[in-house]
Amino acid sequence: MSGTSADFSQWSTARLAEVERLLEQWVPAAAPAGLGAAMRYAVLDGGKRLRPLLVLATAEAVAGALPPAGAAAWRAACALELIHAYSLAHDDLPCMDNDVLRRGKPTLHVRFGEALALLAGDALQALAFELLLPPEASLEPALMVRLCRLLARAAGWDGMAGGQAIDLAGVGQLLDQTRLEDMHRRKTGALLLASVEMGAVASGANESALQALGRYGRALGLAFQVVDDILDVTADSATLGKTAGKDAAADKPTFVSLLGLEAAQAYADRLLAQAHEALEQAGLRRADHLHAIADWVVRRNH
Amino acid sequence: MSGTSADFSQWSTARLAEVERLLEQWVPAAAPAGLGAAMRYAVLDGGKRLRPLLVLATAEAVAGALPPAGAAAWRAACALELIHAYSLAHDDLPCMDNDVLRRGKPTLHVRFGEALALLAGDALQALAFELLLPPEASLEPALMVRLCRLLARAAGWDGMAGGQAIDLAGVGQLLDQTRLEDMHRRKTGALLLASVEMGAVASGANESALQALGRYGRALGLAFQVVDDILDVTADSATLGKTAGKDAAADKPTFVSLLGLEAAQAYADRLLAQAHEALEQAGLRRADHLHAIADWVVRRNH
Repeated sequence: MSGTSADFSQWSTARLAEVERLLEQWVPAAAPAGLGAAMRYAVLDGGKRLRPLLVLATAEAVAGALPPAGAAAWRAACALELIHAYSLAHDDLPCMDNDVLRRGKPTLHVRFGEALALLAGDALQALAFELLLPPEASLEPALMVRLCRLLARAAGWDGMAGGQAIDLAGVGQLLDQTRLEDMHRRKTGALLLASVEMGAVASGANESALQALGRYGRALGLAFQVVDDILDVTADSATLGKTAGKDAAADKPTFVSLLGLEAAQAYADRLLAQAHEALEQAGLRRADHLHAIADWVVRRNH
Repeated sequence: MSGTSADFSQWSTARLAEVERLLEQWVPAAAPAGLGAAMRYAVLDGGKRLRPLLVLATAEAVAGALPPAGAAAWRAACALELIHAYSLAHDDLPCMDNDVLRRGKPTLHVRFGEALALLAGDALQALAFELLLPPEASLEPALMVRLCRLLARAAGWDGMAGGQAIDLAGVGQLLDQTRLEDMHRRKTGALLLASVEMGAVASGANESALQALGRYGRALGLAFQVVDDILDVTADSATLGKTAGKDAAADKPTFVSLLGLEAAQAYADRLLAQAHEALEQAGLRRADHLHAIADWVVRRNH
């Protein structure tokens, strides 16, 4: 993640290497008839991995130390990335956004065909839950239940899938800011909030820390989307790794179309301040990486 | 279910009424932007409900009594039906089977558009896990974990989704019987087996009962598919509630194309005998409804 402190860069590079190693191990090459190859193409070697980093930074912030190998935080980090990857695969399909470029590569259906892209997305969602339910009794059942419940809600009708339905219905419509935020709270916000909550739960956070971290996660999720809308009009496709200007071209409501570019940037800055403030109230053992992630979300150029 | 004993008809009618009531309650009308309507269209008022009946019959066979209201078996019954409904919604999409008729009605994408059909399927998969994870601590965490694990595996890459990938790849190919059975073991068999296993686990079955019930579930799942292939060539669309002859038309390998009609029927009968035999070995408090379901699977006309 460019433009961040050396400490954070070092931390995130190390964590991402381990996440990559685990995803490589857990997304099965053995899935039959090309399904494994499609699942792996959708997940491996690409993306910002923001959700895994949020899980791990939160887990470390609460516990004060790196989660040990085999701990729930690693599984939660990967499960959230699988849900994210499946949502992109389905979102890119011709019947949805019909996008051909993702993470600088042809999208899944361009490479593997629509049917296999659909199935790979479906299988990744199931695999996300499977990751949270290791059979060897290495995790407490009550913890697995809490993690699966957070994931199911964040991914489902009142979370990501619901937000995508609102997004679909909103093309060409004038949404006011309240409805635009409701859409994003579900569409991308729910999974980012779940990343923070699952990381916290994995480290046994108390109720007051969970509340404050929830405020952090919500502010961060909204800031992420505001900045996405800004980058959609200010960055080029090569930098983004996906098609720039597509929301404007698709006549989708965005924070920029609603507020204008300058006010959207100011709004992102206010949300960033809220995120930092919430961290101060969370009583964490260390919050530096979570502060750095918030800074990165708002200052990034892709 | 026509052609079955009066006792079983009465039992299944009563159970299905309760399953319908629970699905009506649990599939949220409140999901935004048409998503709720699409999810409900995909699930409510249709289908044989074979998976819920298998869960409930197994749970009753093990416990010797109807699962009380709020018990895990009811949630498992509904969760499996949600996974089944989502798989049909995705399977009917133009990029898959491109089917327009299902349960005697227009398919989901014909009625709601492809994008919403895709999203409704995605949301139904998440909801299936949510149903198994009620927040009010009414179920033991260890039980929720076992049920979710069985569901995730049955739905995922090594189960249903994997079977669909093999099915896709197999169009126009000559599969031998071993590969055809492997495909069906995953594509429809995994969810039917999981229905039996989840019903058994919900009632606290011991290991030897689980083993025998697993043999029942596997024989039943394969018989179901053999009979599906037979009905595809012998029944008409009105009776089936879906397009007849479509597998043959799509040049898909079937048990009928592989074995011929008579040998396929004889094979279904042998599998039925295996299913009955496994039940005799399971040490159940009552097995009459499970016997009746097996009979129905092989003798049905739709």
